Amino acid sequence: MATTLITGGTVVSATGRGAADVLVDGERIVALLEPGSTVLGANLAETVDTVVDASGKYVIPGGIDAHTHMSMPFGGTTAADDFETGTRAAAWGGTTMIIDFAVQKFGERVPESLQTWHEMAAGQCAVDYSFHQIIGEVNKESLAELRRLPDEGITSYKLFMAYPGVFYSDDAQILRAMQTGADTGLLTMMHAENGPAIDVLVEQLLAQGKTDPYYHGVARAWQLEEEATHRAIMLADLTGAPLYVVHVSAKQAVAQLAAARDRGRNVFGETCPQYLYLSLEDNLGAPGFEGAKWVCSTPLRSREEDHQNQVWQALRTNDLQMVSTDHCPFCMKGQKDMGIGDFSKIPNGIGSVEHRMDLMYQGVVEGRITLERWVEITSTTPARMFGLYGRKGVLAPGADADIVVYDPDGHTSIGMGKTHHMNMDHSAWEGYEIDGHVDVVLSRGKVLVADGEYRGRKGDGKFVRRDPCQYLI
Amino acid sequence: MATTLITGGTVVSATGRGAADVLVDGERIVALLEPGSTVLGANLAETVDTVVDASGKYVIPGGIDAHTHMSMPFGGTTAADDFETGTRAAAWGGTTMIIDFAVQKFGERVPESLQTWHEMAAGQCAVDYSFHQIIGEVNKESLAELRRLPDEGITSYKLFMAYPGVFYSDDAQILRAMQTGADTGLLTMMHAENGPAIDVLVEQLLAQGKTDPYYHGVARAWQLEEEATHRAIMLADLTGAPLYVVHVSAKQAVAQLAAARDRGRNVFGETCPQYLYLSLEDNLGAPGFEGAKWVCSTPLRSREEDHQNQVWQALRTNDLQMVSTDHCPFCMKGQKDMGIGDFSKIPNGIGSVEHRMDLMYQGVVEGRITLERWVEITSTTPARMFGLYGRKGVLAPGADADIVVYDPDGHTSIGMGKTHHMNMDHSAWEGYEIDGHVDVVLSRGKVLVADGEYRGRKGDGKFVRRDPCQYLI
Amino acid sequence: MATTLITGGTVVSATGRGAADVLVDGERIVALLEPGSTVLGANLAETVDTVVDASGKYVIPGGIDAHTHMSMPFGGTTAADDFETGTRAAAWGGTTMIIDFAVQKFGERVPESLQTWHEMAAGQCAVDYSFHQIIGEVNKESLAELRRLPDEGITSYKLFMAYPGVFYSDDAQILRAMQTGADTGLLTMMHAENGPAIDVLVEQLLAQGKTDPYYHGVARAWQLEEEATHRAIMLADLTGAPLYVVHVSAKQAVAQLAAARDRGRNVFGETCPQYLYLSLEDNLGAPGFEGAKWVCSTPLRSREEDHQNQVWQALRTNDLQMVSTDHCPFCMKGQKDMGIGDFSKIPNGIGSVEHRMDLMYQGVVEGRITLERWVEITSTTPARMFGLYGRKGVLAPGADADIVVYDPDGHTSIGMGKTHHMNMDHSAWEGYEIDGHVDVVLSRGKVLVADGEYRGRKGDGKFVRRDPCQYLI
Amino acid sequence: MATTLITGGTVVSATGRGAADVLVDGERIVALLEPGSTVLGANLAETVDTVVDASGKYVIPGGIDAHTHMSMPFGGTTAADDFETGTRAAAWGGTTMIIDFAVQKFGERVPESLQTWHEMAAGQCAVDYSFHQIIGEVNKESLAELRRLPDEGITSYKLFMAYPGVFYSDDAQILRAMQTGADTGLLTMMHAENGPAIDVLVEQLLAQGKTDPYYHGVARAWQLEEEATHRAIMLADLTGAPLYVVHVSAKQAVAQLAAARDRGRNVFGETCPQYLYLSLEDNLGAPGFEGAKWVCSTPLRSREEDHQNQVWQALRTNDLQMVSTDHCPFCMKGQKDMGIGDFSKIPNGIGSVEHRMDLMYQGVVEGRITLERWVEITSTTPARMFGLYGRKGVLAPGADADIVVYDPDGHTSIGMGKTHHMNMDHSAWEGYEIDGHVDVVLSRGKVLVADGEYRGRKGDGKFVRRDPCQYLI
Repeated sequence: MATTLITGGTVVSATGRGAADVLVDGERIVALLEPGSTVLGANLAETVDTVVDASGKYVIPGGIDAHTHMSMPFGGTTAADDFETGTRAAAWGGTTMIIDFAVQKFGERVPESLQTWHEMAAGQCAVDYSFHQIIGEVNKESLAELRRLPDEGITSYKLFMAYPGVFYSDDAQILRAMQTGADTGLLTMMHAENGPAIDVLVEQLLAQGKTDPYYHGVARAWQLEEEATHRAIMLADLTGAPLYVVHVSAKQAVAQLAAARDRGRNVFGETCPQYLYLSLEDNLGAPGFEGAKWVCSTPLRSREEDHQNQVWQALRTNDLQMVSTDHCPFCMKGQKDMGIGDFSKIPNGIGSVEHRMDLMYQGVVEGRITLERWVEITSTTPARMFGLYGRKGVLAPGADADIVVYDPDGHTSIGMGKTHHMNMDHSAWEGYEIDGHVDVVLSRGKVLVADGEYRGRKGDGKFVRRDPCQYLI
Repeated sequence: MATTLITGGTVVSATGRGAADVLVDGERIVALLEPGSTVLGANLAETVDTVVDASGKYVIPGGIDAHTHMSMPFGGTTAADDFETGTRAAAWGGTTMIIDFAVQKFGERVPESLQTWHEMAAGQCAVDYSFHQIIGEVNKESLAELRRLPDEGITSYKLFMAYPGVFYSDDAQILRAMQTGADTGLLTMMHAENGPAIDVLVEQLLAQGKTDPYYHGVARAWQLEEEATHRAIMLADLTGAPLYVVHVSAKQAVAQLAAARDRGRNVFGETCPQYLYLSLEDNLGAPGFEGAKWVCSTPLRSREEDHQNQVWQALRTNDLQMVSTDHCPFCMKGQKDMGIGDFSKIPNGIGSVEHRMDLMYQGVVEGRITLERWVEITSTTPARMFGLYGRKGVLAPGADADIVVYDPDGHTSIGMGKTHHMNMDHSAWEGYEIDGHVDVVLSRGKVLVADGEYRGRKGDGKFVRRDPCQYLI
Repeated sequence: MATTLITGGTVVSATGRGAADVLVDGERIVALLEPGSTVLGANLAETVDTVVDASGKYVIPGGIDAHTHMSMPFGGTTAADDFETGTRAAAWGGTTMIIDFAVQKFGERVPESLQTWHEMAAGQCAVDYSFHQIIGEVNKESLAELRRLPDEGITSYKLFMAYPGVFYSDDAQILRAMQTGADTGLLTMMHAENGPAIDVLVEQLLAQGKTDPYYHGVARAWQLEEEATHRAIMLADLTGAPLYVVHVSAKQAVAQLAAARDRGRNVFGETCPQYLYLSLEDNLGAPGFEGAKWVCSTPLRSREEDHQNQVWQALRTNDLQMVSTDHCPFCMKGQKDMGIGDFSKIPNGIGSVEHRMDLMYQGVVEGRITLERWVEITSTTPARMFGLYGRKGVLAPGADADIVVYDPDGHTSIGMGKTHHMNMDHSAWEGYEIDGHVDVVLSRGKVLVADGEYRGRKGDGKFVRRDPCQYLI
Repeated sequence: MATTLITGGTVVSATGRGAADVLVDGERIVALLEPGSTVLGANLAETVDTVVDASGKYVIPGGIDAHTHMSMPFGGTTAADDFETGTRAAAWGGTTMIIDFAVQKFGERVPESLQTWHEMAAGQCAVDYSFHQIIGEVNKESLAELRRLPDEGITSYKLFMAYPGVFYSDDAQILRAMQTGADTGLLTMMHAENGPAIDVLVEQLLAQGKTDPYYHGVARAWQLEEEATHRAIMLADLTGAPLYVVHVSAKQAVAQLAAARDRGRNVFGETCPQYLYLSLEDNLGAPGFEGAKWVCSTPLRSREEDHQNQVWQALRTNDLQMVSTDHCPFCMKGQKDMGIGDFSKIPNGIGSVEHRMDLMYQGVVEGRITLERWVEITSTTPARMFGLYGRKGVLAPGADADIVVYDPDGHTSIGMGKTHHMNMDHSAWEGYEIDGHVDVVLSRGKVLVADGEYRGRKGDGKFVRRDPCQYLI
């Protein structure tokens, strides 16, 4: 098998940084070495097959995006990125693993839905992947199937408190699922918004002629995110289920998570780049139908109410633990435009899988988080949270050689015709400038990106079975 | 230089664990290696000078006890352990670095006090050491001297809100010191108890004939710890000084720290084993004068009020970040007994430097914290908090080879005539049983403890200059 | 019209106390007078028709019990007190007005339900009465009917988050009702327990053979009261509806109310005597089927968890504003015993309408609340909360002469064959001893109770139209 | 003695309002009567000496300003209003009682200081008055003297956490005083600002040339008010002393008070009109030296930080219980101007005693508080808080006839040459317009103000002995 030495760089982990060479043998890291040490005999740089010069650069574990929706059917259309295009874009951006969602729809069997997603992904992916299981209908059958997920290498499942009639579970269903999840060692993931209340507001806004994308944000008021977050926490408290709340955007929801954690509960929260940088006023409220680009749920929050700064802060203080993208892109033409005249018909989703590592690195540049925290929230914690540590999320002997060489002196301009590799007709991040650059990306030892070229190919990525959440007591 | 391979063990870090061999060359770690990998050529186990078999055991970074008081003058006597005996006991217990306190007394110059401590420690220590600087008198001169501490490799200083007339600083002094500390990049450490109020209660209790050790705990009421903690936080807020509160014991003080952290403040808290296991009722309230063994400040808290469980929880949730010992031992005979008939004359302090790693590991056994969190709170965070990361607190190429092999199948019985190596005539931990054992201890590559023998010698330990706190944004 | 002078007593209001005579002319108070003043000419005591000597006693506004269920159909049976027996018992206990609940059942029209209740009460009552309107089915029709309630003198309505399939409203329904309520100036009253979750737990407990009354308390966990309370608060926040949470029993629910009030929200909470004195362990957990006497919802809470003291405290600090009884009595024989072998079939309810004034006065004796607070939480605030002030809840010129003379030197022994006038075969308060006594009760100027005799008759009480809540900004 | 009938008005109390006539005989109220009732025989309006027509107006208990400093020596000068001018201005504004502060200075005896204040006030006052006792030096002697205050009719005393070297008490002193106060049944009043820290900031700002009035607000940062408020609360918690914090201005201090009250503590807070209407930016930051008009301590807070709205809210939710003025006026010429070039030399104080009732009524007009709450925070609660209820703060038989007829259809323009009767060369409230008017003011039955004329004279007001705080459990 081929050997690679990444030399001269600063290895950054979740806890610190230091000069070290990383030696890769085949798909895995076999050693971290003091640069220039002679105790191991021969000059390694001369004996390995490939040497990657990381001088002046950061060497970090590849990003893990724990929340993506490739080829997701939603609102009568399908997310624009499939597993091929989406994971290739991820690789371009330094993300070497995604965890997507297999969707059990109402009336469907869980194993069949998982099988469907396996079929969609197999042989298509640029980087490694796994699945969470969405339970769209909690009933006796699906609860029994939930118990068998660990055998499939799936250790997390997701429920929705939103979208009545589609994915929605009522509190009785959530309680039963959480009991089963707690019992089975699964992590319960929750879309925490009060769907029935939102649907009333949507209906009323449309009836008042308030049909612009902006009203998507009005209908999905922060009160309804805070409320559902608290409800999920209390049901988790009652059942003993560890809880992971996805795409947290409201500062009040953050406060509920922080309070539960201060009480010692196993409650976790993820946010996404859009909730850190974008806002109700500036983006959803863009003139005309432009705001549709940023229709996602939970929605972008009001800048005036200062949610963005509060979410950054929570990310720093570990009241939120990690950053995923909720990547679920739709084109403006033929997809988003279904909602002209009715914001509720705009497919929900933003495409960010390519830019997460860069956007979060910009937070380091701007003093929002430390370099170590960047690695922690984008890679190490996702690995620990979803049972991948040891193989992913860390540069250590035995770990998969998912490695990114990141150049703090590089620069990245985000936008169409520049860095854009996602299958979309626009970028939600057009014009964002990043004071850093993804130089080299290795996935299980193979160089996917280097010298501005893509060297991987479809099918490089494999399905990864996951252990239970490693972030608990 | 001599080489050592620690092989077959499970390397545990603050973020995870995995099988890896650790290669030491001289004083430092030069590589972490996948066990059995052949890519590096020759069989290392055959070429190194020493092989340590860690099969079935944990390999962890040596413990860092960031709060000790060797030879500390206090209450008319001197702490029973000097740098020789105290650091050797530390080594026995898997602690490979201490940070002690140089004490500027009232009327003294700061550099002179530091020099005194350097002289006491130099050539005496079994393991590496550094100092925090206590500022006993904040004035123009000492503030100026504070600014020069980083040049001395000292990046933290401590103030007392207790002990009027001895170490006490009033709020004006604290404010000025914090301004200087913030400006100089120093971490402000705080003994947070309202001393003037305590002294009133002490006087009143003694006047009422309440002279037993138990009343030490009554006089130092939790309200006065909560109060001072909040005050320190607000003064830190005003000055921008990062704050580290030592020996937190009251659950209400913990809540103040948690609240400040939720607001995004750089506020940290340390607790000690005694606040996790011992109590006002069971220990300070022991019959006769027995309770004197456990007279320390902050005092042991009421079990009935549930402080101990709350402090464990905070340690788990990171509302408290680390565990030190506040090691400051006094013998019963000739020291503690000075306070017979007057609890206020009992020298304050408990000896625990030898047992911290074991006592905290027992928390892993009992499900209080994870194995990773054990490493984090005893080694990695202390290193990051006090500017040692990269050299200490982590097993990584380039780091000092401060390494402990810990046997989860071993057993340790704490008590006099058993594991006791501290210079005391009693153990505060008599009878405690630990389901684990410190097997091998290396300090900068040298084996200090192995096969139940002590192989080091006086002077092995060196003074370590420290960088600024690495735990901040 | 007849005139009455209540002389020599201490008039107690919500804000203070003082010596004053109360002059009644016909049904109303016409003057409060300084005792012995001659400025008004003739000696009033000689000119009035009746003199009530209140020397050494308290003269207070008659109690208002804002939460009763006379003749309430529930669980296949009917509450044992009808309007005749229940209101007479109320009068015996110093309560001169009740507000009962008209129940719109699923599928029923609101006005018809109100009419039914009017018919049940008319001509039957010993004291004045009004109704809140229960909305059992929120739909377009009932929302429209809600808007017309003020015309009927009804200014408050109640929803249930519990009892799916019976009274339950889902969040969409609650949101619509609150919008209408806010718009119409109605006070939204809420039974805040998560019914769907409770029903799951009930089913599971019964399936495990846990059929005793005690498990009623287990199934209705505090988490599900806290959760629903928070949810109601957030929906109220979103709609601007003032909110009144009925029968609050969990300290955590109290905390949610307190937090909302600290944020300036118009959120109110009522508790009941049973949550102040009785407990899960001592009462619901009584041997055999005995606990059935105390099956009510929300349930009695754990004494060990200290809910009772916390609820008393909240009553004192105004985090809870008033005390009602939720009077809904069922006999053990023929009613409660329907649930032998299945706690879920025990009709929910406790009878307390007769004892509220005494039980709360005992709180004064025991130092829980002040004398003034006693008047406030049993009479003045209920009057203000439900739009009765000026006519009820205060002793002032123009107010209805609903007056109680309470003897702090008297004594009341509660129990069957003693003070019991409710239509029940047991007393939930058997054996309670009160250090005070209801001596004289006037309702609209007529003496109902005096010298231990009942002098009123069926039909003394009239329906009272109410103004909007007067407790708002 | 003369009789007066106030007829046709709406009597407003802390709990409600209603039509009633108020009959005064000599100095006291002897009856509240239903207008037009004939049961009392003769037409009262024809038999009384004086009839005051209050048709269309509110009849309320006279205002009680519990925090004034007439003739206060401060900063080398003396407050511009003496007891004559200050109380007359109070009367003009509907305030019929003040509680001023007798000042024990350092080195002085308490009884002597009280005697001094008695001498200053006796025979000078327009309205009734009492004193709180300031303890400027806590020592054995003054503690003993504290115990004798109730015999003097003084039931409250005040300490300062600010002004080191002048009024400042350290924590040991505060603890001892609170113990004595708790034991003696005194209410502890606290000026809660961290004086030693403030003095450091003042020195530093001046050294930086920041000498304008604005920097008075910068030096007295909200952190130092929050800190001291929390400290006072914890010392009160420890000693069991009921606590009353004066002139609360920072929202964070309010939050500390609210939290203590939620925990059931007897902790109270007063605010002043200046903290509700004025701000750091708009007033202290006025151009040139203009801001000196509004130099007071605690200082005006930042409008941008939204303190004003939060304080209004707390006043509504009873997290703050009452409004006083802290009336302590200084002229610009010859007094305030002492601080040109050095803000720390500007005498601290604002004159508002005349305008409190009007300014707070404007809060009713603007929907901040209810009409009843206006009466409660300006009169009824001050009376209860300071042991005056029954005599003051309520319109009831036996109470002093301190009565204000307030016209909601009137108008008041505040400003020099208009309504200004305070002995100042400027008004802090110049230009404020009030949608209401103080029409008639009676003090113990005597008409002081009517028809826009002042009919009272020097010496109308008498010293009032006070009972203990009536607001406790």
